[in-house]
Amino acid sequence: MFYEKLEWRYATKAMDAAQTVPAEKLERIIDAARKAPTSSGLQPFQLLVVKDAETRAKLSEAAFGQKQLVDGTAVLVFAAWDNYSEERIDGVVDLHAEIRGEKSDALVTYYDGLKGMYLPRDERTNFEHAARQAYIALGFAMMAAAEEEVDATPMEGFDPAAFDEILGLKDKGLKSVVILPVGYRKPENDWLLPQKKVRRSRENFVTEV
Amino acid sequence: MFYEKLEWRYATKAMDAAQTVPAEKLERIIDAARKAPTSSGLQPFQLLVVKDAETRAKLSEAAFGQKQLVDGTAVLVFAAWDNYSEERIDGVVDLHAEIRGEKSDALVTYYDGLKGMYLPRDERTNFEHAARQAYIALGFAMMAAAEEEVDATPMEGFDPAAFDEILGLKDKGLKSVVILPVGYRKPENDWLLPQKKVRRSRENFVTEV
Repeated sequence: MFYEKLEWRYATKAMDAAQTVPAEKLERIIDAARKAPTSSGLQPFQLLVVKDAETRAKLSEAAFGQKQLVDGTAVLVFAAWDNYSEERIDGVVDLHAEIRGEKSDALVTYYDGLKGMYLPRDERTNFEHAARQAYIALGFAMMAAAEEEVDATPMEGFDPAAFDEILGLKDKGLKSVVILPVGYRKPENDWLLPQKKVRRSRENFVTEV
Repeated sequence: MFYEKLEWRYATKAMDAAQTVPAEKLERIIDAARKAPTSSGLQPFQLLVVKDAETRAKLSEAAFGQKQLVDGTAVLVFAAWDNYSEERIDGVVDLHAEIRGEKSDALVTYYDGLKGMYLPRDERTNFEHAARQAYIALGFAMMAAAEEEVDATPMEGFDPAAFDEILGLKDKGLKSVVILPVGYRKPENDWLLPQKKVRRSRENFVTEV
């Protein structure tokens, strides 16, 4: 059940290289990331699913040698658009028109408004906006992994420039922002597993108005 | 089931003021946001749960008059820390020590390292980092709402400065980054409900390596 899975999941520190996540489970995790909602439906990021062992070894090196990248089954890399552009937003409009069967005036007007707002902004503001959207999808992917009883480790502890280089992201106008190795825990090697989950109390976390 | 709920949810455009989300459902949604993982366990944001009708009317005005803020049962406001500070990070260390029963050297060393990295950074970099974490919790809250068959509308279309003013956030070192009105859809008034969900195809969204 959803809430039990929420308790079950944790940022797995040791993964078992002898176990492989079944392809259909990995697909459902990917699908949850793809179905995650984003601001104005932009989906301003790409999901890299890295299974190649050699590439994962390089990525692990660029992530302080963290072993989950090689001992898991795949590394999901969330790579945000480096900026918004007319072409990218037009792509979103075209996709809407294709799926909904009509390029309506309301659709065009809405995204024209968005272009008017986003395109004059500096690159960093737009990139940060795109990066935030990727974190929604990260959340959805983590919940889906838990649903599948697949372990996952959300990580910011890596060198984004090195990742972008290894994965050839720069030419595609993408920047890696957060990664999620997925695999299966190796309980006997994982110092974090027996530890209690640390979260602020409801009283401290919530302000009621 | 998780994946059906993923399809079921949508960014509700019209909510039914005559229906109220039961308190226990709202609590579970809040709890999912609270249990969401964050970078180094910082939870660098506050969740405001706004039920007060007068306050919601003001917030709606500061959100282009969007009616879901008043017709729903509550507005969840995710307000990120404006910056990291020694005091805030010490609070995280103390919470870990309290819950895990020990202020270990490893714990102190880890967060000392984090302070060394975060405290010299400019305020904007730290705020953006905190904001990203809030989006993970937003994702968890949205999935929990879907699980409860409660409708929710993730929104960035509001005036953050006005929200901060209405909610008195500035003095607390908080900045509203994204909001989530929760309530029940009013199908006959919602133009979006009959529309197909628009998402990039797997082929377009995923790069396999």
